[in-house]
Formats: sequence, C-alpha cells, structure tokens
Amino acid sequence: MPGEPAFIQALRAIATTPAARALADDAAVLQVGGETLVLTLDTVVESVHYLPADPAADVAWKLVAVNVSDLSAKGATPLGCLYSHALGEDAWDKSFLLGLEEACGHFAIPLLGGDTVRMPDGAPRSFSLTAIGTAGKAAPVPCRSAARAGDEVWVSGTIGDAGLGLAVAAGKLPAAAGPAAALLSAYRRPSPEPRLGAALAPLVHAMMDVSDGLLVDAARIADASGVSIAIEADAVPLSPALISVAGKGLDSRMQAMTAGDDYELLFTAPAGQAAGIREAAEAVGHHVTRCGMVSQGSGLSLTHDGRPLPLPGRLGYQH
Amino acid sequence: MPGEPAFIQALRAIATTPAARALADDAAVLQVGGETLVLTLDTVVESVHYLPADPAADVAWKLVAVNVSDLSAKGATPLGCLYSHALGEDAWDKSFLLGLEEACGHFAIPLLGGDTVRMPDGAPRSFSLTAIGTAGKAAPVPCRSAARAGDEVWVSGTIGDAGLGLAVAAGKLPAAAGPAAALLSAYRRPSPEPRLGAALAPLVHAMMDVSDGLLVDAARIADASGVSIAIEADAVPLSPALISVAGKGLDSRMQAMTAGDDYELLFTAPAGQAAGIREAAEAVGHHVTRCGMVSQGSGLSLTHDGRPLPLPGRLGYQH
Repeated sequence: MPGEPAFIQALRAIATTPAARALADDAAVLQVGGETLVLTLDTVVESVHYLPADPAADVAWKLVAVNVSDLSAKGATPLGCLYSHALGEDAWDKSFLLGLEEACGHFAIPLLGGDTVRMPDGAPRSFSLTAIGTAGKAAPVPCRSAARAGDEVWVSGTIGDAGLGLAVAAGKLPAAAGPAAALLSAYRRPSPEPRLGAALAPLVHAMMDVSDGLLVDAARIADASGVSIAIEADAVPLSPALISVAGKGLDSRMQAMTAGDDYELLFTAPAGQAAGIREAAEAVGHHVTRCGMVSQGSGLSLTHDGRPLPLPGRLGYQH
Repeated sequence: MPGEPAFIQALRAIATTPAARALADDAAVLQVGGETLVLTLDTVVESVHYLPADPAADVAWKLVAVNVSDLSAKGATPLGCLYSHALGEDAWDKSFLLGLEEACGHFAIPLLGGDTVRMPDGAPRSFSLTAIGTAGKAAPVPCRSAARAGDEVWVSGTIGDAGLGLAVAAGKLPAAAGPAAALLSAYRRPSPEPRLGAALAPLVHAMMDVSDGLLVDAARIADASGVSIAIEADAVPLSPALISVAGKGLDSRMQAMTAGDDYELLFTAPAGQAAGIREAAEAVGHHVTRCGMVSQGSGLSLTHDGRPLPLPGRLGYQH
C-alpha cells in the first residue's frame, strides 16, 4: 500500500456498512431510535498539523472547530465530543484545556469523555477528537455527491482569511495590526457556525465544508456528483481584512480560492431558491454568497468577469 | 497540573454534562431519541501500550477489543466504531488493517469512519478508536458506584491469563506450546463477549471491566460505591492453561488477581440471584464466577480459605 490513497482504499473495503458512506463524506451517518446521528473523528499531530510554538489553547480550539464544521456540513447540530489527550508539559496541557473549554462552550458541544495517554520522552504528540451530532428525525443529510446540473453553487462566510492568517503567523506578511489580528484569528480560531448546516440542509443538494481550499473542494463535489462546476472568481466573497491586506484583484482571489482552513460551507442548490437560502443563513446570523453554477459534464472550470480563466496548477491542499 | 491525576481532575471541571458521568466510568452515556447510547474512546501508543515488534494485526485487534469491553461493561451492544490511523510502513499498516477487519467482524462492530494522519519521520505512532453502542430503550446502564452492602461480587471468564501471556511474549516464561499459545492469545487477542454486559445489566448493581487487575478494579468499585469489598482468593477463576503453567496455589492466584488486560466483567449483584446470573451468562456462551462479598465500610480486603490475607503492595496496574 504505497501511501495514504491506497490505505484509504483498503479501509473502504472494510467500512462496507451503509452508515460509513464509503468513507467518502468526512462523517458517518447512523440511524438510531428514529434519529439520524452524525459522527466524525479528526486527529492533529504536532509538527504536522500544528507547530510546537503554536498557542496550545488555539490548537485545542481548532480541533473542536474542525469537527463541528464536519457535523455542520452534514446538517447536524452537536450533541457532544470525546477526545484523546497525549500528556506533555504541564503548562502547555493546562493552556490546551482552557482552549478546549472555551471551544466546547462557544460551539455548544459538551465534553463527554475521552482518554489520556503518556508518550515516550520527546515524541511528537497527537490529539484525536470524535464529535457526535444529530440531524434530527428524517432530516435530509447532505453529501458530496448530490449536485445536479442547473444547481447554483454557494459558499458561506468569506474565503481565504485563514490562508493569509497562516502567512501572518509565519511572519511572511506585514500587515496593519487590525487586519493582521483578524486574519490570524481566522487561521487559529476558525469559527464555523454550528447551526448553519442544519438551517441549510433542507434547501441544498450537495454540501461539504471547505477545509482544503474552495477550488479543490468544489472539484471534489463535481467528481463525486458526476457534474461540471464553474466557479466565478469575481463572485467569491472576500473579507474586509483580506481586501485591506491583499486587495480584491485576481491574484488575491486565486490565493483565497486555493488556501485551506476556511471551514465554511460549500453547497449547491436549485436555481431560484436564493431568497430562501439567504434567509435561512441570516436566521442563524451568518451569510452566504452565490459563486458558481453546476452543469452537465465533468470537472471544474473558472471564470472571471464572464471570461474563462485557466485553472491554477494547485487547487488547494491535497492529501 | 503535575501529571495525569491532576489533568483528569481539570478535565472533570470541563465535562460537567450528566452524560459524561464525571469521567468516572470509562464511557459516556447519552440519551438520544429514546435510546441510551454509550460512547468510549481509547488510544494506544507505540512503545507505551504496545511494542514495535508486536504483530500489527494484534495491536489492531486489541484496540477494538478494549473498546468493546468498555461498551459491554455499560450493558451496551456495539453499533460501530471510528478510528484514527497514524500512517507508517506499508506492510505494517496492511497487517494492522487485517487485524482491524478480523476484530470488527468478530465483535460485530462495523467500521464507520475515521481519519488517517502522517507522522513526523521516526515518531512513535498512536491509534485512537471511538466505539458507540446502544443499551436499548430505558435499559439500566450499570456504573462503578452502585455496589450495595449485601451484594455478591462476580467476575466473568478467567483471570490472569493475559498477565502470564505478557510474560510469554517477553520470553520470561518457559511453557509447553499449547498453554503458552493460549496465554499469549489472551494477552494479544483479548476476546470480551460483546453481548455479556447487555445480558447481565438488568441483574447487576455495579459493573466495570477488569482492565488493570481484579484487585485494583474491585477497590475502585468499593471506593466509588462507598462500601467494603472482600475478595475470596480461592474462588477466583483460573484457566486450565494458567494452572498448567503456574499452578493454582496462592502465589499463582495473587499474580492473576494483580495482572492487567483481562477484559472480563467484574460486577456486584444482590445475593440469591446466582441461578439467574449464571443462566444469563450461559445464554450468550460465557460463564461467571462468584468471588467475593460487599459489606458496609470501605476499602478492599482479601481472604483465602476463609482466613484473612494481607493485601499485596501492588493491586494491579495503576495509572
């Protein structure tokens, strides 16, 4: 098994129960007692997913946030989480717990339990978190593969902030204090709205969260659904902080569409539903933007001001 | 926070939802749609919980088995599991997946999903598994703290095999091939009966699985319940393989009662229920043995042939 794709293929051969959704959907969907439960698990590893110098409280916050984002993408609201903690230096662990408590409070996801383990001396540590949520009774549970020709493509919030925040964190981007703080916060403390997915689920066809970059994730929906998706670069929503630092030109937009860690929702919905979709998002204090079209065919394409644009060589973070 | 006990104390201050059971019970208990769900999470770390030379398939088997044991101790039958895999050498990973598939099949716990991560070069790897089970509708969910004065103490299966199996694995115990294989298998491929806990749950007061040693786990039930527990060393069930290698004298029994990794169920039940308890276990192909009494007071005591026996200095594996 050379590498991760082959390994996941081998895992798929084991995870044959329908609830596993062929491991194609970032979350499992289980029917229990007439309710639809959604389960997801994410692991972060020191020096791979975060740096030893990153604030411990932010590492914990992000671990909770990415799992909440996975639940939301399935239209589920959080019921609780369990997590596994690799013990390390006391002050770091204490700070981690403060971030965990803040995040569990912020996202209304109670800590239910977990495990603590000791690591061999000097070993990089890792933290796994399982989140469980409910999509209610007979609620539709969106997946990646349900986009249809004629749908419009939507994205929530703004795109690219976390990517620039990473550059700020690495000291690569000089920026005024205000915007720099906003971008850094987007990177270190992503804040998916946990109620957004449940509000949108009845209105959408396909839905997933944008974790690896808008373009690569849109390409994944296109592939899984057997359709073509055209993203309109000029329609992609950018934040005031991003615009103040990088502008709103095409270079800035390309950067934003290929950066990871957005944890916003990308979804497709039938044309003509715009008002209802915007209302549903606003009802939970969030906003959504139409940024593309689904048509027959395959693959991803890009336009700018109505003209075709070549795809960049790298669509986002690819595992 | 000096060390694990202080860390867990700090975690308890966060896990205040009733479903977390104050992190005192190895599993969370969540009510969803009229059903009682049980969730548990365990992590194993290379060079801490297993050795790099251990067969990868056995590492995977044991990871599934210990979580199934936690579900069973709560009277829950498995619904599924998610796990996190730290990628390593291809052949090892492939063997791990074979063991995972075997264990998921054996314990009837479908793989629902998970995560794969890369580790920094040369880093020890760790694997986390979350299991979810159901205790049905309005089923009693046993805990550690419900033992009552007058209860009898019971244990399922036999005790101490895995402890001797560890000695076999370490090359410290010369043994005939047959018994050695049986003991090694008890250590590397523990086989808790996933239906046993659900069969016993309506009949017991306190219940937990024996993972750290019969004596230390009995002491935990005594502490949590505010009662005194007396274990009868001569009544503790030993396997033919263990007896053939170590005999059934007091030394052998003390060794068995303080060794870990049994993954049997330790429970207390009202006196006079012996026949019903044995029938319930036999109905799922397992057996149980009465091995002690609960009385008013506190702490653990030990007898042998009716005479008091001093407690050993070490009651089992203590975190």
